[in-house]
Amino acid sequence: MSTDAPQPPAGAEPAPPAGAAHPAPLRTALAELTARLPAGTLVTDPDVLAAHRSDRAPFCPSGTPAALVRARSTEQVSLVLGTAHRYRVPVVPQAARTGLAGGANAVDGCILLSVERMDRILEVDTVDQVAVAEAGVVNAVFSRAVAEHGLFYPPDPSSWEMSTLGGNAATNAGGLCCVKYGVTADFVRGLTVVLADGSVLRTGRRTAKGVAGYDLTHLFVGSEGTLGVITEVTLALRPAARAPLTAVAFFPDPAAACAAVADYMADGTRPSLLELMDRPTMDVVSAYRDLGFPPDAGAVLIAQSDRGDQAPGDLRRFAGTASRHGGDAVVAEDPAEAELLLAARRLVAVATERLGAYLADDVCVPRRVLADLVDGVAEIAREHGVRITCVAHAGDGNLHPHVLFDPADPAEAERAHRAFGAVMDLGLALGGTITGEHGVGVLKRDWLGKELGPIGLRVHRDIKHALDPYGILNPGKVLPAAHDAGAVH
Amino acid sequence: MSTDAPQPPAGAEPAPPAGAAHPAPLRTALAELTARLPAGTLVTDPDVLAAHRSDRAPFCPSGTPAALVRARSTEQVSLVLGTAHRYRVPVVPQAARTGLAGGANAVDGCILLSVERMDRILEVDTVDQVAVAEAGVVNAVFSRAVAEHGLFYPPDPSSWEMSTLGGNAATNAGGLCCVKYGVTADFVRGLTVVLADGSVLRTGRRTAKGVAGYDLTHLFVGSEGTLGVITEVTLALRPAARAPLTAVAFFPDPAAACAAVADYMADGTRPSLLELMDRPTMDVVSAYRDLGFPPDAGAVLIAQSDRGDQAPGDLRRFAGTASRHGGDAVVAEDPAEAELLLAARRLVAVATERLGAYLADDVCVPRRVLADLVDGVAEIAREHGVRITCVAHAGDGNLHPHVLFDPADPAEAERAHRAFGAVMDLGLALGGTITGEHGVGVLKRDWLGKELGPIGLRVHRDIKHALDPYGILNPGKVLPAAHDAGAVH
Repeated sequence: MSTDAPQPPAGAEPAPPAGAAHPAPLRTALAELTARLPAGTLVTDPDVLAAHRSDRAPFCPSGTPAALVRARSTEQVSLVLGTAHRYRVPVVPQAARTGLAGGANAVDGCILLSVERMDRILEVDTVDQVAVAEAGVVNAVFSRAVAEHGLFYPPDPSSWEMSTLGGNAATNAGGLCCVKYGVTADFVRGLTVVLADGSVLRTGRRTAKGVAGYDLTHLFVGSEGTLGVITEVTLALRPAARAPLTAVAFFPDPAAACAAVADYMADGTRPSLLELMDRPTMDVVSAYRDLGFPPDAGAVLIAQSDRGDQAPGDLRRFAGTASRHGGDAVVAEDPAEAELLLAARRLVAVATERLGAYLADDVCVPRRVLADLVDGVAEIAREHGVRITCVAHAGDGNLHPHVLFDPADPAEAERAHRAFGAVMDLGLALGGTITGEHGVGVLKRDWLGKELGPIGLRVHRDIKHALDPYGILNPGKVLPAAHDAGAVH
Repeated sequence: MSTDAPQPPAGAEPAPPAGAAHPAPLRTALAELTARLPAGTLVTDPDVLAAHRSDRAPFCPSGTPAALVRARSTEQVSLVLGTAHRYRVPVVPQAARTGLAGGANAVDGCILLSVERMDRILEVDTVDQVAVAEAGVVNAVFSRAVAEHGLFYPPDPSSWEMSTLGGNAATNAGGLCCVKYGVTADFVRGLTVVLADGSVLRTGRRTAKGVAGYDLTHLFVGSEGTLGVITEVTLALRPAARAPLTAVAFFPDPAAACAAVADYMADGTRPSLLELMDRPTMDVVSAYRDLGFPPDAGAVLIAQSDRGDQAPGDLRRFAGTASRHGGDAVVAEDPAEAELLLAARRLVAVATERLGAYLADDVCVPRRVLADLVDGVAEIAREHGVRITCVAHAGDGNLHPHVLFDPADPAEAERAHRAFGAVMDLGLALGGTITGEHGVGVLKRDWLGKELGPIGLRVHRDIKHALDPYGILNPGKVLPAAHDAGAVH
């Protein structure tokens, strides 16, 4: 989903000027903060606010912010939250705004609280293979910095060149490497979190193990800014990985490719990447650039192994598995050829974006039923008369169906939204989740109750209320409104 | 710490008969439960209650329970908690009672709620490499069952032949394999948890990834029965590992051994086991059985690799690293010799137990300072005039100092308890945690505030109160009494 720079989302309207019309408590809060923060830290310029209203989720509502605070320290974040808590002003945490679920979208009269300028790497410890960084450090900047110490930070969301460690932690970001190395949560050992009332909480530890008290770290990871604002992260690192070898295999249909995935994953080897594209995705990519996809291929798998001397054997086994399922595999001879094979996967985002509007889904199911999901999505596309392309982190059962539509055609837009919901319903029916890695935000808020059930929702609300009794932190995100509990769309 | 069967802890006194003297709400609750549960499920026999009063933590207070319920289903657990909630009766969850922190110890007038009879493995899925089991399934039974499917469940606490999956999850149990495979939490994908009011909550999912809502699963993992009662677990599995190769290396002193550990871990290879014993531990083991330890060795490391063809190379690198730090390494030629090398480590528990009373500590520090911790513990032993032996999951920086003492000598017992506390203080001063894998329970409750600080404690209490407003779940465990916050001896 990443392009070179954040852009206003499709459908965003210019924000009206902020200021005069604010209620008195908000005006007082902004005046206090302006007086106490360094000059230029709190911004109310309407153009700046308009540019920060939304993340990269298309078709998600966003409100009109009252101010943007670009914090440079945990203390400044604490000041903002303490003040907002006192005056009951909503606060929306932000960093790079590369999220795909509207989790960083403004609500009316809120303070946008950005940690993007908290961008210092505080420590890289090569003995314990752990690092401490501020929340606004860009993933790629951090990954390159630790690589200079011979270390490896695996989490690699598509947005990694732009998105921040804090945002990655707040959304528990995934990526291509998860199939072998796990998600962001698996690398977070500790956090500094500013709570709704401005208190500064340190969670977790820097040691490899520890069971003193509740696992608050992972309660905040993935909570999308609704429980606290992450300002600092302590991250586990790994020794540098070897450069991967790459193979591709073309299959007559997605079912055959998915069967090969299940077989290959079960044999014991964890590939460092295992991606699937269906025929509609290949067509979208081919329309953008001809990569010579076989015209009769119904699906393609791309696999990598980064196990050094063992990688060639891993990929031979992959090719053998593919062949047993009717696939036709090629192992790249060198890094340049491997890069070419991966290029197709990398072009999906840009090739899809140029087609216009789409809704990006993100269901994750057990690998056993991934083929049923891909087939079911194709059926949903036919039923609803919309085009849906499927790309998957196949080794994890995490499918990204993109529902393409013409927003100028209200009937088609309506069908697209229905198809988008039908995909989530199918994912749940297959024992999966409505979101594998993008999060709930505003986009999937009304589906959350279907996945969690009424008791799950109640516990979520109880915890939210315990940590943020006035509901100032990212209101309207993740949790559906109370009267919607269980009754969604 | 494990022996063949659970035994009453040192210092436990026989419980007085239960029944007549109970307050009215407790009597009513027990009468209702007796009427609604199958015959024999609720037991008030004083001998049975006495036998179930305590876990395996020595010198931890335990109260007098009013009843023991041996639940056979989530519904029965729900009935017990719903009733206890209505009548404000404390409930102490139990399973195998192999814990080492008093987390399963009775409080006066409580219902002991055992899930030990919920012992069915419900499903083993070889394609998705995931299993579902009831909380009372014994770890070793489960591990062997999945091994029959070619799968591997790594978490291996010393108690694995007795302890249960539910207890392992409730305490986030560690073990020898953590250095490579991680702790119990890393394998828990989802839970069925009965909440304080009897509501049944399902957390998490069976998919590899998922970010729908807060990570409640890991909030309950390691919460030691204070937030809910785990009745079912969904666990990730791995493909079967290869039989490990083993090496040992003797060093002149612990500092040299710890330096070798840091070096070996930093070079990129994760051993599947990396244990350290200091000289006092070798002496305790030697007194039990002569294993031919070199008389001048100050510490020994045992390392394993389970990477098949690569294991010999891994252990050659280990031997080389040991040698660079003044160590003298031997690689086992065959599994029988390997078993002999590991025997020393396995004998620590039984050899220590026969010496009489001891307090088992469990601090975990960054590997960088493990040598400082071992040296500091030796200094604490000298200062306090007690004998302390040190065995460590060295690759994780997790040290188990055993403070040996004569409980018949009150002055020595007092010094032992002071030394026990001094070890935790040292662990915290070195950037570590008071407990790497055993948990807080009653044993370390009064130290928790030192590690978490007042804001951390407050958030713990807020979450506890949100989930268990009447405080019926395992009262007095983990969290220090409110007036102790921050002020611990």
